[in-house]
Amino acid sequence: MTHPLFDKHRATLDGALNAIRTRGYWSAYPEMPSPKTYGETAQADGKAAFDACLGKEFALDQPGRRGTVASETSPYGVPLAVAYPKCDPDALVAAGLKAMPAWQRIGAEGRAGVCLEILERLNKRSFEIATAVMMTTGQGWMMAFQAGGPHAQDRGLEAVAYAYQAQAEVPAAAHWEKPQGKNPPLVMEKRFEVVGRGVALVVGCGTFPTWNTYPGLFAALATGNAVIVKPHHNAILPAAISVRIAREVLAEAGLDPNLVMLFATDQPAETQALAKHPDVASIDFTGGNAFGEWLYANCRGKQVYAELAGVNNIVIDGTDNYKGMLRNLAFTLSLYAGQMCTTTQAILVPAGGIDTPEGKVPFDQVAADLGAAIDKFLADPAVATAVLGAIQSPDTLARIGKASQWGEVVLASRQIAHPEFPEAEVRTPVLLKCDAADEAAWREERFGPIAFVVRVADTPAAIALSERVVKERGALTVGLYTTQQEVIDAMTEATWRGKVALSINLTGGVFVNQSAAFSDYHGTGGNPAANASYADAAFVANRFRVVQRRWHV
Amino acid sequence: MTHPLFDKHRATLDGALNAIRTRGYWSAYPEMPSPKTYGETAQADGKAAFDACLGKEFALDQPGRRGTVASETSPYGVPLAVAYPKCDPDALVAAGLKAMPAWQRIGAEGRAGVCLEILERLNKRSFEIATAVMMTTGQGWMMAFQAGGPHAQDRGLEAVAYAYQAQAEVPAAAHWEKPQGKNPPLVMEKRFEVVGRGVALVVGCGTFPTWNTYPGLFAALATGNAVIVKPHHNAILPAAISVRIAREVLAEAGLDPNLVMLFATDQPAETQALAKHPDVASIDFTGGNAFGEWLYANCRGKQVYAELAGVNNIVIDGTDNYKGMLRNLAFTLSLYAGQMCTTTQAILVPAGGIDTPEGKVPFDQVAADLGAAIDKFLADPAVATAVLGAIQSPDTLARIGKASQWGEVVLASRQIAHPEFPEAEVRTPVLLKCDAADEAAWREERFGPIAFVVRVADTPAAIALSERVVKERGALTVGLYTTQQEVIDAMTEATWRGKVALSINLTGGVFVNQSAAFSDYHGTGGNPAANASYADAAFVANRFRVVQRRWHV
Repeated sequence: MTHPLFDKHRATLDGALNAIRTRGYWSAYPEMPSPKTYGETAQADGKAAFDACLGKEFALDQPGRRGTVASETSPYGVPLAVAYPKCDPDALVAAGLKAMPAWQRIGAEGRAGVCLEILERLNKRSFEIATAVMMTTGQGWMMAFQAGGPHAQDRGLEAVAYAYQAQAEVPAAAHWEKPQGKNPPLVMEKRFEVVGRGVALVVGCGTFPTWNTYPGLFAALATGNAVIVKPHHNAILPAAISVRIAREVLAEAGLDPNLVMLFATDQPAETQALAKHPDVASIDFTGGNAFGEWLYANCRGKQVYAELAGVNNIVIDGTDNYKGMLRNLAFTLSLYAGQMCTTTQAILVPAGGIDTPEGKVPFDQVAADLGAAIDKFLADPAVATAVLGAIQSPDTLARIGKASQWGEVVLASRQIAHPEFPEAEVRTPVLLKCDAADEAAWREERFGPIAFVVRVADTPAAIALSERVVKERGALTVGLYTTQQEVIDAMTEATWRGKVALSINLTGGVFVNQSAAFSDYHGTGGNPAANASYADAAFVANRFRVVQRRWHV
Repeated sequence: MTHPLFDKHRATLDGALNAIRTRGYWSAYPEMPSPKTYGETAQADGKAAFDACLGKEFALDQPGRRGTVASETSPYGVPLAVAYPKCDPDALVAAGLKAMPAWQRIGAEGRAGVCLEILERLNKRSFEIATAVMMTTGQGWMMAFQAGGPHAQDRGLEAVAYAYQAQAEVPAAAHWEKPQGKNPPLVMEKRFEVVGRGVALVVGCGTFPTWNTYPGLFAALATGNAVIVKPHHNAILPAAISVRIAREVLAEAGLDPNLVMLFATDQPAETQALAKHPDVASIDFTGGNAFGEWLYANCRGKQVYAELAGVNNIVIDGTDNYKGMLRNLAFTLSLYAGQMCTTTQAILVPAGGIDTPEGKVPFDQVAADLGAAIDKFLADPAVATAVLGAIQSPDTLARIGKASQWGEVVLASRQIAHPEFPEAEVRTPVLLKCDAADEAAWREERFGPIAFVVRVADTPAAIALSERVVKERGALTVGLYTTQQEVIDAMTEATWRGKVALSINLTGGVFVNQSAAFSDYHGTGGNPAANASYADAAFVANRFRVVQRRWHV
């Protein structure tokens, strides 16, 4: 007898399973915020639901409540003042452990069905969640909707599909019959139980509170674990809404809602203590190197899935579409003001210039043309504010302010007034140029709208430098522009050694910082930027264990 | 075009793939050392090949040779004096890295085919390898043949099957076409390359130099990595023969033999330095806690698959076959003189005794009867020496000598003269009894033929204690004897929480310390005894990474 929610969502799961085996284009959740898809009143309803959260305590019936925390400040200057229940971490862990046996018992199909129901509900609430994402992260509306809503849901579904597939490969039972020559065979019955590893902690980041949280949340949940979501202290609301929806679905399905819990805190020491809790068995983390390194060092024996900083880079050897390349790069560097883990920081250009249909373009000209392309693309304030969004953190604002010390300014950052949110800190990218030897400047991650055009000796040196940066500093993305097959081959082999995804000659509507669920692996897990990938078998296989029993028959 | 070795071994691989999905009985390599299977001269040939190794340098054409190491002493007192080339670890790592790109290029099928050819050659050389296993580890002949030969080969094949399956789930290419409403779709070509994580180090143990080495070796090799095998300094020969065979197959297949290399050393510091080499990406280790903990602490960022110490235990509530139970336990405790990571150390028995068809048997009587059963089973010196083998290490001999300090002696260890090997240190098990409260005695791993009958309050206390020991000290196996379904249920749930394999009411020809490839998961990876299992998807999934590239079409 299959679980009713598994039956209900079977077609979606099958679609996802087919997608992860073929990795062509596929999506379960429509990315266009169209009234036809989401309902005529969806946008207004979502906005109203968001507004209803403001200035009061966020209702979440969790164990161990001992006060509230209200730590969010909107990059758009909107007053938030949402107070989240602050719960005793020991109480949360104990509640999670208590909830796990029944979650184990319903099996992989039941868990997949419940996860798919949660995802469907999240999808229906995309406008509300998108508004929460926008207002807490500073993303522009369209990105907040797509990346914070359907794209994040797709990533969650992708994790569920991998988790289901991995568990489905484990037989529930076996009849074991070993011949013994002329004697009767040895015969045993065996049972194989899929058991969650333990309570999972999922630590979110301040810029993508759902997109970077759902993969770990759903991978851990679908494999039989209770999950505690610890959002970034400035982007709690999108996670809190998501957790509340998950708890509602769990309760409706007759399960313990404490399989998904929120741990809201603005004290890193409290998160560290929770991470070290002996019953916390896995930790998913997206964020800075300092906390990531702390996890690696202090959470021995736990599974840690971490996405940290990197220095994404692009090598330009030449192009058959110079304008298209510049437009593509201008958009890449502008999108969400570069506050993406996939945005290019360093553009490696040969000192002798690059080959284009219009002839050789000198290094300085490439830099100047890119600066001009950015400036042109962001000339219309309506376009600029929609694409750039607002700067998420004071640290990033400060970095922009001192960027000129790291290189020669090709294009200075401008502040743009947001027509709707006068207090929003909107900034255009700063483009710098420097020599490859200025490593202290361009080889540190400079998170935000800060990019470098780096002068390298020639294309082979650029490829070698790209590889070295990937290996030493990590990267989620690299790009290449060239018209030469041998350059593509050399860069391809460099990315195999450095283990980083490569985008080649993007001049159209796809950008190096975009990663599509079900098709693009986000991170390889093979360089310092991340030790795991969204999503693959390795992202799920160690989140559960198989416990067998056997007896003679 | 598939690789010829993939075609050649396709049926075997298909059998293995089916076996890991169903986990009933299956084996690729015959476990009986029958002349009909292995050839009339196989035993003599194997002995001759072993003898030919003795007293000289073991030929192995590896880079960086800078002397030799000859560190083995046979527990049977046979002079070995095999000198192995000692190679510069940096040279080995560099050679491994150099060999990997061509290994990557032949793809998952080619790698599986080559691995299967190596396994077939290993199988044909089972007598030679078994003799080397016997003489270096002290195992009895039959165990050396079965566990050191076909069973180890089966475990290797199991790892290859999981590795192949995991890689086969990654599509090589995708055509990605994303609709854009009324506009033309976005279209991209994508390629997904399976890339080995880096050079793999496989550190073997002194008791099972092939059975515990082949899984890591073949899992790493099949997923695209070069492998350096570092055998225990007292059991190098079985690994060295295996490595040489692998190198022969690789060379014949036109591949770089440096994909499989031997690092022979008797200096732990040299192994530690190699483990910390930045290009060593994964480490498989079987052995003691001290080195395992060192790996966990010092090899951050590397994949560590470790099997360490544990305190395997059995709960006896009752039995419907008292004599069968005693016989089964007597064999379990005697086999290879308890020098197995799966042998029971603690037998938890209620103070009030156990239920049997003959009525309640008091605690002391259970202990005495088990002692008598062991004594009876080992009464015939021919049986005893065949089953017990010789004691592998002076440390174990010393432990046997001081065992009486850890409890009341129920059965003392006896020394038995080996008819064929007068210098062999053959010892029967020592059986002790103690109270559950004597934790300092019985809760430390006492590797070797040392077992405790532990007095516990009652069956529920025994189950709770078993769970606590598993969680705190680790275990690869637990057992249960009972006639009550509710006791089975309670113990089953305890093993789910403790994540340990359970054998129920073994009174016949299967023993708790036996783990059959393709059916029994060896270790769960979920308690301190091991962080990985032979074999499952988690054992292979993180040994390779997927590196993608994409471009518009």
